[in-house]
Amino acid sequence: VRGIEGEQVLLRIISGEAHTHDRRPLYDCLIELLRAEGLAGATVLKGVAGFGRDREIHTTAIEVAARDLPIVVEVVDTAERIDRVLPKIDALMSGGIVSIERAHVIRYAGSRPPESPEGHQGS
Amino acid sequence: VRGIEGEQVLLRIISGEAHTHDRRPLYDCLIELLRAEGLAGATVLKGVAGFGRDREIHTTAIEVAARDLPIVVEVVDTAERIDRVLPKIDALMSGGIVSIERAHVIRYAGSRPPESPEGHQGS
Amino acid sequence: VRGIEGEQVLLRIISGEAHTHDRRPLYDCLIELLRAEGLAGATVLKGVAGFGRDREIHTTAIEVAARDLPIVVEVVDTAERIDRVLPKIDALMSGGIVSIERAHVIRYAGSRPPESPEGHQGS
Repeated sequence: VRGIEGEQVLLRIISGEAHTHDRRPLYDCLIELLRAEGLAGATVLKGVAGFGRDREIHTTAIEVAARDLPIVVEVVDTAERIDRVLPKIDALMSGGIVSIERAHVIRYAGSRPPESPEGHQGS
Repeated sequence: VRGIEGEQVLLRIISGEAHTHDRRPLYDCLIELLRAEGLAGATVLKGVAGFGRDREIHTTAIEVAARDLPIVVEVVDTAERIDRVLPKIDALMSGGIVSIERAHVIRYAGSRPPESPEGHQGS
Repeated sequence: VRGIEGEQVLLRIISGEAHTHDRRPLYDCLIELLRAEGLAGATVLKGVAGFGRDREIHTTAIEVAARDLPIVVEVVDTAERIDRVLPKIDALMSGGIVSIERAHVIRYAGSRPPESPEGHQGS
């Protein structure tokens, strides 16, 4: 596991749950791309409400409006790795926002072995 | 669709699910306000746990504690538009945190037509 | 309630739902720690998909892959308070990413009394 402590980049991709690429959910494609390209990790968050380009309010509060809820994909990695993957992300997207912010990484992953191996916790 | 590429602002409003304005959920009012004011978009995320001013831990893990889960509203737009809407946001809120961060927007919305029109994907 | 308006810090802790400390969910332990240490508040967000150190894609879309979904804990507070709690956070963690970003807090909590006291809204 490579370390990424220090000044890094937080990449955020905001799109909608109904966005697709090759008839698959866009965020599925993004996650696969990010993994294949060796990014350190990725998190997909799904909103409970929001609006975007189409100006329609999507919300879980109203069943018929719960289509195309916001999806936020977040990645923290080095500027070099983020820069390298950006054109490939762009090629998948037909809408949405891609932004980058600075993030100072204090601690990354397996500095020590996990306390409790996967599948054993709470038993 | 106006473009917002370049140095922009990420506005984050943190409140609770039980926060209200005019007896309506606060985040509903915020989303409506942000849309009416022409902001580029907004995402509402609901936490699974958290605490705030009241120091009580709210969590989906315990049914009686699942009231007032954290709500985060995020908006990415120009500094000018964010500044213009801030007093109106403030007027709706009785608690919570409003913060701004810098965000560099690389790609915004409809640079190209969507690959798959809404309602047609996956069919 | 102390105010935290001005230049502050957004602390983000990214881990997995299956991460534990003392056989309890890690995010539970983090929330308790943050509250005990007097931090201004905390929000726990749970992802619907993602991957991390183990390179496996976890997603709610596939039942068997829905283990260890990403968990993001966010805290906004002063640099001093964040710095003070960081070693204690580190002591709880065996994986994941801890990062800090700058956040400009415009409005914090009870600048005015709540419009609607807790438990009375919507009635």
